[in-house]
Amino acid sequence: LRNIRLVVEYDGTDYHGFAIQRSLRTVQGELERAIASITQNPTRVVGSGRTDAGAHALGQVVSFRTPSAIPGLDMRRALNASLPDDIVVKTVEDVPDSFHARRSAQRRNYRYSLWNAELPAVRERRYRLHVAGSLEIEAMDRAARCLVGEHDFACFTFGLSRYLATGRRRTTIRTIFGAGWRRNGEPVEFDISGTAFLPHMIRNMVGSMLRVGLRKLTPEEFRGLFAKGEVELSTHTVPALGLTLVSVEY
Amino acid sequence: LRNIRLVVEYDGTDYHGFAIQRSLRTVQGELERAIASITQNPTRVVGSGRTDAGAHALGQVVSFRTPSAIPGLDMRRALNASLPDDIVVKTVEDVPDSFHARRSAQRRNYRYSLWNAELPAVRERRYRLHVAGSLEIEAMDRAARCLVGEHDFACFTFGLSRYLATGRRRTTIRTIFGAGWRRNGEPVEFDISGTAFLPHMIRNMVGSMLRVGLRKLTPEEFRGLFAKGEVELSTHTVPALGLTLVSVEY
Repeated sequence: LRNIRLVVEYDGTDYHGFAIQRSLRTVQGELERAIASITQNPTRVVGSGRTDAGAHALGQVVSFRTPSAIPGLDMRRALNASLPDDIVVKTVEDVPDSFHARRSAQRRNYRYSLWNAELPAVRERRYRLHVAGSLEIEAMDRAARCLVGEHDFACFTFGLSRYLATGRRRTTIRTIFGAGWRRNGEPVEFDISGTAFLPHMIRNMVGSMLRVGLRKLTPEEFRGLFAKGEVELSTHTVPALGLTLVSVEY
Repeated sequence: LRNIRLVVEYDGTDYHGFAIQRSLRTVQGELERAIASITQNPTRVVGSGRTDAGAHALGQVVSFRTPSAIPGLDMRRALNASLPDDIVVKTVEDVPDSFHARRSAQRRNYRYSLWNAELPAVRERRYRLHVAGSLEIEAMDRAARCLVGEHDFACFTFGLSRYLATGRRRTTIRTIFGAGWRRNGEPVEFDISGTAFLPHMIRNMVGSMLRVGLRKLTPEEFRGLFAKGEVELSTHTVPALGLTLVSVEY
């Protein structure tokens, strides 16, 4: 069997997330349907990670095994012809047997995007959270710095007990390589890269740092809450629409 | 009665155009519904012009008369709260009685946008026409120059007889103030401004100039067809999704 890696871009607005769910429209479901129809072979795909309902990807990585002999470029063309127009396969590549889109991933790069202006912008509404109040980006960026390094991020996920009960992972310790805020006119972006992320972790980080930007919390208070692992940090969840999986490194 | 001018931005993807049509979702229909619900007064609005089904606006101008005493900023807030999120009222302004969004307009500025790359870009799919082939922008821009000035643009509208039968206007002569192509990486844009435009005129111009960009027609041949008023120029209509009414000048 060949082992194939895809890089996939999608607009998650009209999907119930990446991971397949019975009778709901998911990105994985669409990919598996398209691959099956092209290769005449039902195939399970593995993504580098789940993305939330409504979240997007510029560079989600997916792998699967197939007996098909279709060359990569032809497969890309056929997949894109079969997929809906909010999913695009950017590359198709043969990879060694040992490659696994989730287990081989070393680093995941996410972005959370805001539209910071009095009025919302129609064309940004699916990709950037509209925030009308003026934001102190400097303070938000200062707050973000304490996230870098190896830490227990339990405080940023939803009900810890609920998370651990899913039994998917045993630890809430993760390593963050970089995290920072940047303004570029009305667009404001938070880039974060790390080994892996807990459910809702980035959306809760952003929600709490928005409170810093709106002067409801100082960067020092944010740092204090994080140092103490206060669950309060998981109570300001921003919508998934602003979240994009930018790329995955192996 | 007050006379009020709105500047409106919309994503036309999910609308059957600007102009109201019985039982179809239109931008005008949504605006009239929102104004009626806020002012408690059924009101007809006038737009600077129709936009096609699927075409967009960054600065459509709309005027209407109302007995309402609601101040402009409050009206804007209330309208935006009532409108769907693909329509945003950017400004609300009291204007003299003589102002009429269509009849007072002096100049309309439109843009047609392409995404010129091997692969489509998911986030651009509602706003830019994907063109995979490499385009000679220089040649397209040279072709565009002959459009500037006062000309009979009948060749760019759909079946002339059908157009004249609508009885809305008696002449197919229009004045174009400027027209040109520009590349900015993968995004490619055609900007055109003029007194007014015939139905499908811009979409047919773009379709024929794309043939120039793809080397199926030289700029000189394009100019020749235009000079002779060849109806062939109305047979390459590009989709409305790339078309945006950028602004209207009074």
